[in-house]
Amino acid sequence: MSNIEVCQIKRPKGWPEMSDFEVKYSTVPTPGDGEILLKILYLSVDPYMRGRMNDTKSYVPPFELGKPMQGGIVAKVEKSNSDKFTEGDYVVGMGNWAEYMVTDGGGFIKVDPSLAPLSYYLGILGMPGQTAWVGLTAVAGLKKGQNVYVSAASGAVGQVVGQIAKNMGCHVSGSAGDDAKVAYLKELGFDAAFNYKTADNLNKALAEANPKGIDVYFENVGGPMLEAVLNNMNMFGRIAVCGMIADYNAKSASEVSTAPRNMTQMIGKAIRMEGFIVSYYPDACKEWLGVCAEWLKDGKISYKESMVEGIENAPQGFLDMLSGKNFGKQVIKVADD
Amino acid sequence: MSNIEVCQIKRPKGWPEMSDFEVKYSTVPTPGDGEILLKILYLSVDPYMRGRMNDTKSYVPPFELGKPMQGGIVAKVEKSNSDKFTEGDYVVGMGNWAEYMVTDGGGFIKVDPSLAPLSYYLGILGMPGQTAWVGLTAVAGLKKGQNVYVSAASGAVGQVVGQIAKNMGCHVSGSAGDDAKVAYLKELGFDAAFNYKTADNLNKALAEANPKGIDVYFENVGGPMLEAVLNNMNMFGRIAVCGMIADYNAKSASEVSTAPRNMTQMIGKAIRMEGFIVSYYPDACKEWLGVCAEWLKDGKISYKESMVEGIENAPQGFLDMLSGKNFGKQVIKVADD
Repeated sequence: MSNIEVCQIKRPKGWPEMSDFEVKYSTVPTPGDGEILLKILYLSVDPYMRGRMNDTKSYVPPFELGKPMQGGIVAKVEKSNSDKFTEGDYVVGMGNWAEYMVTDGGGFIKVDPSLAPLSYYLGILGMPGQTAWVGLTAVAGLKKGQNVYVSAASGAVGQVVGQIAKNMGCHVSGSAGDDAKVAYLKELGFDAAFNYKTADNLNKALAEANPKGIDVYFENVGGPMLEAVLNNMNMFGRIAVCGMIADYNAKSASEVSTAPRNMTQMIGKAIRMEGFIVSYYPDACKEWLGVCAEWLKDGKISYKESMVEGIENAPQGFLDMLSGKNFGKQVIKVADD
Repeated sequence: MSNIEVCQIKRPKGWPEMSDFEVKYSTVPTPGDGEILLKILYLSVDPYMRGRMNDTKSYVPPFELGKPMQGGIVAKVEKSNSDKFTEGDYVVGMGNWAEYMVTDGGGFIKVDPSLAPLSYYLGILGMPGQTAWVGLTAVAGLKKGQNVYVSAASGAVGQVVGQIAKNMGCHVSGSAGDDAKVAYLKELGFDAAFNYKTADNLNKALAEANPKGIDVYFENVGGPMLEAVLNNMNMFGRIAVCGMIADYNAKSASEVSTAPRNMTQMIGKAIRMEGFIVSYYPDACKEWLGVCAEWLKDGKISYKESMVEGIENAPQGFLDMLSGKNFGKQVIKVADD
């Protein structure tokens, strides 16, 4: 039985390219004592992975060259030599960009396939959904009636941010990079949405979308957007810094898109800006799974995915997501159940 | 009896100039019913006042053109028609750049001239000292044993920041703009200090001054320093943003000194950066007065002032402070007691 793995073989300088990856053919590994064999159904490509492609110290180690890329996966237990898992179980956890892998099951948890499509466990019911919840509640301390703005609002995290804030009784605005995405935000119930690529003036677009100013900004992009947001923030504004995708592919500091030149506003407006890593908030993460399951059941939240088929296409799906070509959470479908 | 008042008559574009001010001669006002006449002994010039010279919306209104500049003053009650004050009382509060003024006493509190030199109520025992305490404790949540770095470290706020942190059992480093100031920081007990103007490389200078990295940064300057600090911050670093004096006199956003281009580090290191306004922390402000009085009595804290004589010289003293020519807290001595 053959296996396919997708490996990183070069460290990118600036934007990653297809030649930074390699598709390797091998045989399906055999699980040892206490181990399980996973058949991977879906894998997740997320912006944070760009950081792991670099050889720099961070809160997660860099990807190893020549080894399979790693990320969130949903898989089915194909064989089990472990008493913790049974053949046929569905699990989610951090795994390989591959068709099959062997693991001792550490970090994997069983999931319920009847609650939602399995791929949702990589999105709204997984790390991106938890990130939205943690950022808004634990980091920004969002309160009912506040004015919330989120960038990259139709993305894996952004679309959840907006819906959580609406369900909490807030005024919600968002931006995205094309008109179809903007239309989708309005469908989701956003009070205002705009296309940041065609806006004449970000300051003005933000002022129009947020007539009462911005109390909480969920930051996904960085660059000139952050400067414009600071201009539109209210006293005691809170910025939850989830991502700054505009800057991830800069080759050097001098290539970084315009940095915010108006940070003195943080003083006069007593603004707090805080970066966060979702895994440091286990309680809030758990809380989200309960909240989200209920909202899904009650039809109070929905989720849009962008599906690419085939493990060989994972690198292209990843690159497309980094440049914003995806519409909704980018997932790679590796195999049918 | 003649009075002198110093007024702002123009809105500066960029650096303020002497011609933005005017010295006006008048007669000493007479206190009405319930009012008091103050003889001003000292007045304070502080970086935040630069903001009030602009005609922009902020947490404090702009100075009115043609009216006396305002700031912290220490004064003696010369005449009292109020039952709250007695002739001979010493008071501190927000007052005019003048020799004499009349007030209903709102916002003024009596101070004890035996505890410390009266001018200290504009510095270590006043708003700058409170700012140091609030920023370190209430905003940054400083803990014993942490690594603290402060910029503009010999200034009105910085020198207090360093001594508080030392008294709390922290490793403390600081920077200043000339060698005499750096030597003074070492006298005060700073573990490390450097001259940022002669340092070849800010990143390296910070790494040497902070061998265990930076846990808490007390931000007074902004600009390239903030970028270098982000490079040297530890996981869960905290930045209390008190001031960004490097940017106060920029004529436009494009003239602002280099903005930090490495803000993505806020995510991976889960850094929190928070601007604050000391007056929003009344409890911590009060707490500081108790702590500071005790430390002064026990010789556990000291304070350096830079004194300019004569109300007519207040504008020059203010401009010199903005460009860092002062050494220690800049105070204007208006009259002998």
